[in-house]
Amino acid sequence: MQPHVTHSPARAVVLLSGGLDSAVTLAVAQAQGFTCHAISFDYGQRHRVELDAARRIAAHLRAADHRIIPLDLRLIGGSALTADIDVPKGGASFRGADLQSGDSSSIPITYVPARNLVFLSIALGLAEVVGARDIFIGANAVDYSGYPDCRPAFIESFERTANLATRDGVEGRPFRVRAPLIDLTKADIIRRGHELGVDLSLTTSCYDPDPRGLSCGTCDSCVIRKRGFADAKIADPTRYAGGT
Amino acid sequence: MQPHVTHSPARAVVLLSGGLDSAVTLAVAQAQGFTCHAISFDYGQRHRVELDAARRIAAHLRAADHRIIPLDLRLIGGSALTADIDVPKGGASFRGADLQSGDSSSIPITYVPARNLVFLSIALGLAEVVGARDIFIGANAVDYSGYPDCRPAFIESFERTANLATRDGVEGRPFRVRAPLIDLTKADIIRRGHELGVDLSLTTSCYDPDPRGLSCGTCDSCVIRKRGFADAKIADPTRYAGGT
Repeated sequence: MQPHVTHSPARAVVLLSGGLDSAVTLAVAQAQGFTCHAISFDYGQRHRVELDAARRIAAHLRAADHRIIPLDLRLIGGSALTADIDVPKGGASFRGADLQSGDSSSIPITYVPARNLVFLSIALGLAEVVGARDIFIGANAVDYSGYPDCRPAFIESFERTANLATRDGVEGRPFRVRAPLIDLTKADIIRRGHELGVDLSLTTSCYDPDPRGLSCGTCDSCVIRKRGFADAKIADPTRYAGGT
Repeated sequence: MQPHVTHSPARAVVLLSGGLDSAVTLAVAQAQGFTCHAISFDYGQRHRVELDAARRIAAHLRAADHRIIPLDLRLIGGSALTADIDVPKGGASFRGADLQSGDSSSIPITYVPARNLVFLSIALGLAEVVGARDIFIGANAVDYSGYPDCRPAFIESFERTANLATRDGVEGRPFRVRAPLIDLTKADIIRRGHELGVDLSLTTSCYDPDPRGLSCGTCDSCVIRKRGFADAKIADPTRYAGGT
């Protein structure tokens, strides 16, 4: 190993949302020895809680860099997460068992059109600029199979497209898109984060936090998170608005 | 079939940059009977001339809708078009003959990492929201083969990815990505626009317009445009800063 330049660690771009999955993904990339450039999007969320969480996680896990890209997806509309549609509660739109089936009718109304494709595309641009070959995304096909852009077939197709879209790809320096959580259950992800020393209390999953930023405990995402901690037999460090 | 809804014209999303190619592409889509939703990006260009041109063209060609999405690609850096790098003049970076070869070393320094992939991804999101099945892009592999994301293989791969990334794609309502200019020379494109009644004087190609918005006449893009009008034997309506 040369001290200064030639054997410097490989760089990776890591999509960081402030949620549990992307935090564990960043920890996995760091544990693999990558110098990590985290990227988040300010996409017109109804709350800023998740961007605050992303900042805290990037600092906690010592990312080399963290960029927040403003991209107002409200301008194209179409989701309960960005538009004026009520976030569903109590599992009405998001029934765990149904989602495993891959039945497309289970796509939740919190789906944002083409979101992961847009985010990965911008992450790819950043990867090319900073000289990263690897792009990490916390996509997960088990608990979230309702989202088409969290499936392995999408990730693989994106990687092929990325290598046709870019100078590096065309010139023989291919990009790899890594989704290390793709086959894990929420409980597995929580265990993996715990093993890697991630302070999971810094992450947020709630679709509908209260004005103090506390999680509601009843939206689909909170329900899945709670169940994950229970299944992993790890104490849930989340502060819920109504108590535990 | 109900009278009011079902037989309305099909919708398309059309990427509109303010340049010649995308203006002709919009005219082609309109001529094919699509109700066109134009989309442009305010991506931190060093000048606003092209967004002004895009607005004029959308109005001139009677697009149903025109959205301008702010997306500051300067935050990821890396191109003479968005960063503080001098725009090359006199064909130094962009030598027509070399570009035809597909030699990747001809990729111009005005290349913006992953730009068309990012723009198409957002256009796809809009298409899903407005119920369009067709996305038009003015990509052209002849005069601009130096850009990897203007090649047919990229367009085809993006279409496959799009249909894995979206609810509509997964549910059997596939998107088509149309690049009607992909095999045309600049002269062919100018002739096609002329036939369709496009006022090409509204379009701008210059990478480095003067403070009044007049084209420099000497950057690579101006040189290709001038040559196109000459080859098409159509009078060039462009006002150049230094005269014709």
